[in-house]
Amino acid sequence: MSVETEYIYFSTDGNTDVIDITPNVGQLLKSVKMKKGIVNVSVIGSTGAVTTCEFEPGLVQDLEDVFEKLIPSGKYHHDEAWGDGNGHSHLRSSLMGSSLTIPFDKGELILGTWQQIIFIDFDNRARDRKIAVTFVGE
Amino acid sequence: MSVETEYIYFSTDGNTDVIDITPNVGQLLKSVKMKKGIVNVSVIGSTGAVTTCEFEPGLVQDLEDVFEKLIPSGKYHHDEAWGDGNGHSHLRSSLMGSSLTIPFDKGELILGTWQQIIFIDFDNRARDRKIAVTFVGE
Amino acid sequence: MSVETEYIYFSTDGNTDVIDITPNVGQLLKSVKMKKGIVNVSVIGSTGAVTTCEFEPGLVQDLEDVFEKLIPSGKYHHDEAWGDGNGHSHLRSSLMGSSLTIPFDKGELILGTWQQIIFIDFDNRARDRKIAVTFVGE
Repeated sequence: MSVETEYIYFSTDGNTDVIDITPNVGQLLKSVKMKKGIVNVSVIGSTGAVTTCEFEPGLVQDLEDVFEKLIPSGKYHHDEAWGDGNGHSHLRSSLMGSSLTIPFDKGELILGTWQQIIFIDFDNRARDRKIAVTFVGE
Repeated sequence: MSVETEYIYFSTDGNTDVIDITPNVGQLLKSVKMKKGIVNVSVIGSTGAVTTCEFEPGLVQDLEDVFEKLIPSGKYHHDEAWGDGNGHSHLRSSLMGSSLTIPFDKGELILGTWQQIIFIDFDNRARDRKIAVTFVGE
Repeated sequence: MSVETEYIYFSTDGNTDVIDITPNVGQLLKSVKMKKGIVNVSVIGSTGAVTTCEFEPGLVQDLEDVFEKLIPSGKYHHDEAWGDGNGHSHLRSSLMGSSLTIPFDKGELILGTWQQIIFIDFDNRARDRKIAVTFVGE
């Protein structure tokens, strides 16, 4: 048993930009050479989120629409602290969750055929992102 | 320390069918004979979700009502890809989350008295389901 | 590699009381003396939740407002079971999630500068709470 902490770096357009990070996590799994265990994918920051989803353009549009309906962009009390207009970004991140843990076996991520790991950037501007990817296993 | 990957198989009615899988996870914990650690429960597929809940009929009905209100069944852009009418199923799954990690100690799951592990099948049809249950501990 | 299960105890005012538990988890990490791994933070009970958030008063108010909008307090079928009027508390807990797993490295939690671990007590009364904090690493 061992633990390995790795990182993914990428840029986003913000504004509910949805990024498929399954290939990045899969490649890191190959590099750490573990066969069986769990991997934790955690956003560093409070305006992004990570979950699983069938990554196809229609559903990406639907995700954007759903969040605009549930937690609309606009005025929030958070603006009184910083005036950066991204209260909705924080709220969506807290609701969706900033971390995901999934299993792997035989050196492969255990996911459905139509199931990808996605990062959503809810911030209201383009961002450089750093995601921690931690493997625990053997 | 070791890691054990197990699976649960069952059938659902779909349509926000809520299944209490606590007994299944508890039984697997007995069979892997670990005393202390964490267990990750992950849906394989993109239209189911797993969380904790007091599993009683009233609350199960409330869960169904809440999701129909927040993310109604109906037309989504996802239909343009496959035409299978389950855009809401995917969106609910992504929002709720497809995996759960909880601790165990002294060979027992650490849960409240009124707290169960539930699987929700958000798909719009009956499904055969496979859930990965991964124990990390000693 | 080893696993350590610890607990945090505190009191809340209920009614979507938001508590920053980052210092508690950080202190436990120091006491278990691990350098690299993951930590699972799990609510014992079915009316609380844990997530990450920028912990500042405006955003705490926004979180309370958002949940009152998405899943209002009021009548739910759950009341028919116990009559304790906290159906919304359970639903919010199930939606938000009762557990969080994040990484640590070099003996420090991996979090953004403006990212804290928060516990939200959705119950409709003051509560004494017990949170399980499980470290897996080396």
